[in-house]
Amino acid sequence: MALYLEDFAAGQPFLSGSATVKPEAVARFATEFDPQPFHLDADAAKESLFRGLAASGWHTAAMTMRLLVECEMKPAGGIIGAGFEELRWPKPVRPGDTLRLTSEVLEVRRLSSRPTQGIIKVRTVTLNQHDEPVQIMVGNHTIAFDHAVAVRILSGGGPKTIKRRTASTPSLSMILQIELRQSETPDSEQATLPKAASSPITLCDLPGVQNSPPLATQI
Amino acid sequence: MALYLEDFAAGQPFLSGSATVKPEAVARFATEFDPQPFHLDADAAKESLFRGLAASGWHTAAMTMRLLVECEMKPAGGIIGAGFEELRWPKPVRPGDTLRLTSEVLEVRRLSSRPTQGIIKVRTVTLNQHDEPVQIMVGNHTIAFDHAVAVRILSGGGPKTIKRRTASTPSLSMILQIELRQSETPDSEQATLPKAASSPITLCDLPGVQNSPPLATQI
Repeated sequence: MALYLEDFAAGQPFLSGSATVKPEAVARFATEFDPQPFHLDADAAKESLFRGLAASGWHTAAMTMRLLVECEMKPAGGIIGAGFEELRWPKPVRPGDTLRLTSEVLEVRRLSSRPTQGIIKVRTVTLNQHDEPVQIMVGNHTIAFDHAVAVRILSGGGPKTIKRRTASTPSLSMILQIELRQSETPDSEQATLPKAASSPITLCDLPGVQNSPPLATQI
Repeated sequence: MALYLEDFAAGQPFLSGSATVKPEAVARFATEFDPQPFHLDADAAKESLFRGLAASGWHTAAMTMRLLVECEMKPAGGIIGAGFEELRWPKPVRPGDTLRLTSEVLEVRRLSSRPTQGIIKVRTVTLNQHDEPVQIMVGNHTIAFDHAVAVRILSGGGPKTIKRRTASTPSLSMILQIELRQSETPDSEQATLPKAASSPITLCDLPGVQNSPPLATQI
């Protein structure tokens, strides 16, 4: 079920499924994006501070994104990154590890500059099979209001909570186009909502996540 | 040439080579890690706020890592991430774009708790072929002192700058093992440096980068 801004609240938890880190995937990712010895060479990795092969942190981030896209937190229009405040890898991810996520909404706020959107701050912790955090992220995500609420706001009404959009409301893409036109010509008349509804807009991307033992402990 | 902590200074710039973003790579990465319509379906992407196909932000981060690993900033022991304070994608990366990096050292500091290591804070901006920032990161990286300097510190001497290690100095892995033993048994005698030198240690991973136009401008 697609979620809108009014569906989120601080303290809300979200869980994900799990995924096992295949050894060949660790090598493939590292070969393409992060060709450093501790990701690729078992002997060199033993000599490193990782004390064994470890997945690239960016591989962990990418696997986290996949788990996020498939988890129960499904903002309408996709997962939209508006910037990360924190991203850390407190422990190495080993080939064969099984990862899962716990996310928590830290903050929900409206954007006064963008009446159809808000921001949720989310902490997402990626855990291994021993429940040890291997990645911690805190990110802000842009979230749309429910279409009907957005229409109400753009029509001059308040952001009353109206659950779920109906077939008769314009699509979010249209609402955003109107909003863009309004911001481009701030002195123009209130834009008229179009009558035909096109497919819902899909927005940006990106996960969110937070805090815990400092990475320094691994070094 | 491998760089040690004493080789870094605030304000120091580093450049990278460039890499072109292959359309099939955008689709492949998104299929595996970020299967959202604006990364995979040209028609859906046109309807999205990206207004066309865009690479996953994590793909951009991974490509940035590859450029960093190959750039002139080569810390001895690898690129070690000690945490990111900022990670943003101000503009979408399009299939066919050509990316390059500009990095700048923002801060260099010693770690009083770890006499053989220090931290450099680095801002890395990923630019497209129009010189527009597509990713901004600010990260802290753990950097080793030159081996000879580390030996001097562990022997009770000050961190005088001694460029490049010599064959007769112990490897960093040995020094770190000694340091670990010392911190595990803080009241023990000064550890004796081993005589045989093993291969240099390779440490953690990760790039660093910084600030500019807010991501919100793309939404």
